[in-house]
Amino acid sequence: MSLIKDLNWRHAVKAFDPTKKVSQENIDKIIEATRLAPTSSGLQPFKVIVVKNQEIKDKLAAGALNPDCMRECSHVIIFAAWNRYTAERIDSVYDFTSDERGLPRGRFESYTDKLKSIYLPEPAETNFAHTARQTYIALGLAMAQAAELKVDTCPVEGFDKKVVDDVLELKKYGLKSVSLVYVGVSDPQRDWIAPMKKVRVAKKIFVIEFN
Amino acid sequence: MSLIKDLNWRHAVKAFDPTKKVSQENIDKIIEATRLAPTSSGLQPFKVIVVKNQEIKDKLAAGALNPDCMRECSHVIIFAAWNRYTAERIDSVYDFTSDERGLPRGRFESYTDKLKSIYLPEPAETNFAHTARQTYIALGLAMAQAAELKVDTCPVEGFDKKVVDDVLELKKYGLKSVSLVYVGVSDPQRDWIAPMKKVRVAKKIFVIEFN
Repeated sequence: MSLIKDLNWRHAVKAFDPTKKVSQENIDKIIEATRLAPTSSGLQPFKVIVVKNQEIKDKLAAGALNPDCMRECSHVIIFAAWNRYTAERIDSVYDFTSDERGLPRGRFESYTDKLKSIYLPEPAETNFAHTARQTYIALGLAMAQAAELKVDTCPVEGFDKKVVDDVLELKKYGLKSVSLVYVGVSDPQRDWIAPMKKVRVAKKIFVIEFN
Repeated sequence: MSLIKDLNWRHAVKAFDPTKKVSQENIDKIIEATRLAPTSSGLQPFKVIVVKNQEIKDKLAAGALNPDCMRECSHVIIFAAWNRYTAERIDSVYDFTSDERGLPRGRFESYTDKLKSIYLPEPAETNFAHTARQTYIALGLAMAQAAELKVDTCPVEGFDKKVVDDVLELKKYGLKSVSLVYVGVSDPQRDWIAPMKKVRVAKKIFVIEFN
């Protein structure tokens, strides 16, 4: 299959079959795609939280616009971005990168100094606006990977961030939730959007070309 | 090939061979992946600008942190988001969707009314923060599709938005640039990052699991 076929195959599932579960092997592949996502300066300024536990999903449902999806999906994957950049976080990434590449620590110091001079004086919310954007790259790749595996998903931005952050205790990690993906198996009886035609704006409107 | 293999294959190219061009067929596939990207409420609140024209790339280079990449890549793809939501833009998407699905216009009115009640009272910059996020989903899929085709890319957020917006006259479309992707063929002599090990944070740090 190709990515384009996979993207045409997928749709935002509106109801999941609570009796059907996605294998750990497939969840691991979806997570791996998010881990490989490119991010600004390679900082990967977020974590991915995977919830299979029914009790926690039930608690998260209090913050969901579609609580049935939260309760009935197989796994929910939450993207949670760094609440702000810090010197320690930036150094940690570049120290690890240097170690992995067999380079002396500090090899990228002029670059990390530049990143710190840009990010550290900014208010936390400006930092977070930037870290949150990076999670969307991973969100897209999670859906692409799920589609390759013919695993159903629904991406969601609209939820009560406070409920999700509190239930998952994200504050203690210095994280704030941004988006989530329900992962599971569509219930054809209730997934009303499944039979509908997939619609995207026409290429001639979507694209401007300078040849 | 699988998405994970493709993502492992790609890297952020630091120098392109100016004598080598990417085929229109491959550019079209990359654009198609961005067009199929899921977006919040299906609004697709952005356009994709594809620049092959050398004269325009030379002008855009004035706003690039790495002007050689801008001048020497085969094509540059710019992601430009709606400067704000409007009732017309929202209705236009849902009228088109209704038409394509053979449903009466207004079928989704309670939903579009809700979207308007959320977005229209917000300041333009709050709207733009949301539309800009959506482009990152497409950015990630563009790189995934390019990698599937073994086409080299480099995603870029750091550039002079004013130069790019002015050269492409984005204001007249109600758009603002967010990110771009250089597309082309790596120059192995100057693409210094190519031989280096790809580094990502370890799964045990990146993922939190509630089983």
